[in-house]
Amino acid sequence: MPQIDADRLLADLRHLRSIGTQGTGVVRPAFSPKDMEARRWLAGRYEEAGLEATIDGVGNVLGRSRNAGPALLIGSHSDTQPTGGWLDGALGVIYGLEVARALAADPATAGRAVDAISWQDEESRFFGCLGSRSYCGLMTAEMEDGLTDKDGVALADALREAGLDGVPRLAVEEGRYAGFLEAHIEQGPTLEDEGLKIGVVTSIVGLRGTVFTFTGQQNHAGTTMMARRKDAATALYALANAINEEFPKVAGPRSVWTMGRAVISPGAPSIVPGHAELELQYRDQSTDVLDAFDATVERLVAEINARGGASVEARRSRVQIPPAHMDEGLQGHIRQAAEACAPGNWMAMPSGAFHDAAVVCARLPSAMLFIPSIGGISHDFAEDSHDADIVLGCQVLADAAASILQAA
Amino acid sequence: MPQIDADRLLADLRHLRSIGTQGTGVVRPAFSPKDMEARRWLAGRYEEAGLEATIDGVGNVLGRSRNAGPALLIGSHSDTQPTGGWLDGALGVIYGLEVARALAADPATAGRAVDAISWQDEESRFFGCLGSRSYCGLMTAEMEDGLTDKDGVALADALREAGLDGVPRLAVEEGRYAGFLEAHIEQGPTLEDEGLKIGVVTSIVGLRGTVFTFTGQQNHAGTTMMARRKDAATALYALANAINEEFPKVAGPRSVWTMGRAVISPGAPSIVPGHAELELQYRDQSTDVLDAFDATVERLVAEINARGGASVEARRSRVQIPPAHMDEGLQGHIRQAAEACAPGNWMAMPSGAFHDAAVVCARLPSAMLFIPSIGGISHDFAEDSHDADIVLGCQVLADAAASILQAA
Repeated sequence: MPQIDADRLLADLRHLRSIGTQGTGVVRPAFSPKDMEARRWLAGRYEEAGLEATIDGVGNVLGRSRNAGPALLIGSHSDTQPTGGWLDGALGVIYGLEVARALAADPATAGRAVDAISWQDEESRFFGCLGSRSYCGLMTAEMEDGLTDKDGVALADALREAGLDGVPRLAVEEGRYAGFLEAHIEQGPTLEDEGLKIGVVTSIVGLRGTVFTFTGQQNHAGTTMMARRKDAATALYALANAINEEFPKVAGPRSVWTMGRAVISPGAPSIVPGHAELELQYRDQSTDVLDAFDATVERLVAEINARGGASVEARRSRVQIPPAHMDEGLQGHIRQAAEACAPGNWMAMPSGAFHDAAVVCARLPSAMLFIPSIGGISHDFAEDSHDADIVLGCQVLADAAASILQAA
Repeated sequence: MPQIDADRLLADLRHLRSIGTQGTGVVRPAFSPKDMEARRWLAGRYEEAGLEATIDGVGNVLGRSRNAGPALLIGSHSDTQPTGGWLDGALGVIYGLEVARALAADPATAGRAVDAISWQDEESRFFGCLGSRSYCGLMTAEMEDGLTDKDGVALADALREAGLDGVPRLAVEEGRYAGFLEAHIEQGPTLEDEGLKIGVVTSIVGLRGTVFTFTGQQNHAGTTMMARRKDAATALYALANAINEEFPKVAGPRSVWTMGRAVISPGAPSIVPGHAELELQYRDQSTDVLDAFDATVERLVAEINARGGASVEARRSRVQIPPAHMDEGLQGHIRQAAEACAPGNWMAMPSGAFHDAAVVCARLPSAMLFIPSIGGISHDFAEDSHDADIVLGCQVLADAAASILQAA
């Protein structure tokens, strides 16, 4: 089997970390000067590894093997959250580079094709997974038109400033790929809690969201008797609490739901609120469970409206994501490699977070591998993983890639 | 009995409305140029009515009768909410002026003393009921030191700009007063709902408040399993809903409670909130009921903390107000006058809103009279009352004042 070079892997990860480094974290949002600097550096490393490097018109960096297919596409994203950790995305990108190098260095796999990739804007400065969506033909000009970041910067201007104006876009090269592999930090505590080293992702959970708007009547909190009130906050507290009490009755073992945004208007302690908004987000790998949550929401909304205080209206959030199932065959190769490198120290698990693989799987058989996150922390400067876990994960991915390509 | 002049009363009310008028509302916050213009106009009207007018160092305007006591002090406040209605405070101020005029014009009461007053800053630009508190000796230099409005303007600067720097403060004139009378719009819908014209206030409800701080752990909403979460919002929804379910079990017939301020941090739908704040305010005329609410809060907080998710800490709000009971004797005179002017069309009721009378009653026997608010609306440009109700209320107050002074 191919041998990865642990020192080279860690050195490249640390170099990538140095571009946009801030304290222990990294600030390298998509299309920022630091992001483009990292992409140009990466293109250089791809070339040094013997790959043919291209930065496409949306910022994706492809290191294409000069070998004929069937090929594996391996990578993740190198853009970060506005204040991100150093491994979120970067880990999978450097794994792609290292696996390409390791397989090229092993006579048994030197003739096989590993294409390394860094997707653009997974972290949604303009649109989540913009780069992989573009690559998969899932972004139209209409969808991109008018996209802005939270500061109002237009995507078109960001592309121009990044020097990507008029640069051609990459697309799936038909017939070349046996599949796409993405490695990532878990971004949760499950592997660490279980004392395990590798997660083989079964699916990327689906996400649905509902925005509730409560309409009551704003009034003086001293002179408006309780029986007469239409208090938007009272209805919000009742619905939110009922959701937290009823969802467990239909939830799967790894269902999650969150009501992280609630706004009460006008928001003064002496005023009966006339308006409120609540946002509910729920995730599961099973469409049946998501449907059961939908039905529960519908029932609880009807109950609140039957009470006769403030009324509530529910509408779907803009983003609704179906569960994405990872390819069974590719999963089998990763499980086998994990068991060989870390016997008994891996588990199959769904991904609670979204990833480019959930986009790419619409066009290519896809699979993912997780390594443990220290304390489960992510999207934070404190995000980290142990060097030994980083090295082990890359070896598992290299072994799985070799095994997939040898079987292809 | 004295006869009020309905046209003169309404003309003065409308003139006062014209100072700071905006649409159907009035913008005349304490110490603003419009507020001071209104106070100077009022001082002039007091003088024209034969009263000796003074604007004191905190902006209170007193129209002191030249007759010897026992006197009645009658009035309210002429400052408004930032976007206020035209009658909140203004009604009672012009009633004081009109009652002084009506009693002076009636040979039976011409020798009696009615002092008219307009208090300053009842609406809490700097400190609620600042003027009446100063008059009653309840403000110390330490309390005033460092007071600012919501824009950061210091009280000392506002006083200087209003030309009040170094102007002496009024204080209760010992031995002069039989009591203080304040008329006000109800600011609630009870009189209108009951089809009644006059409310005789029994007490001004006490108010207590609690600020809850929830401390959880901020986390990724996709990768953090439910069992591991310490979700500050979940604890907030549970506590708020429990309060709404448990308070009715110990409430009085006119208890009110409100949770009009809730803030979830960081407030993103994809992040398990690590921090939240909730503000609860409760009012009742009975200290026993307020104590029962306190005990309920304490029990529910302990229950939430026993659950083991996010923790909650409760602390008292800055403002805690005990119930203020109106003088029984003065109430009797108002009831009698109400029954004479509007037989069967009045009721005894507590005030759910706070008023200067709740301050002044610490120093002088005090009583209040309400007239109906159209739709119960107040603290809003739409605030209004029917002319006939305004006129009737003033006549009741004049009759009550005459009766009180004749008995004094």
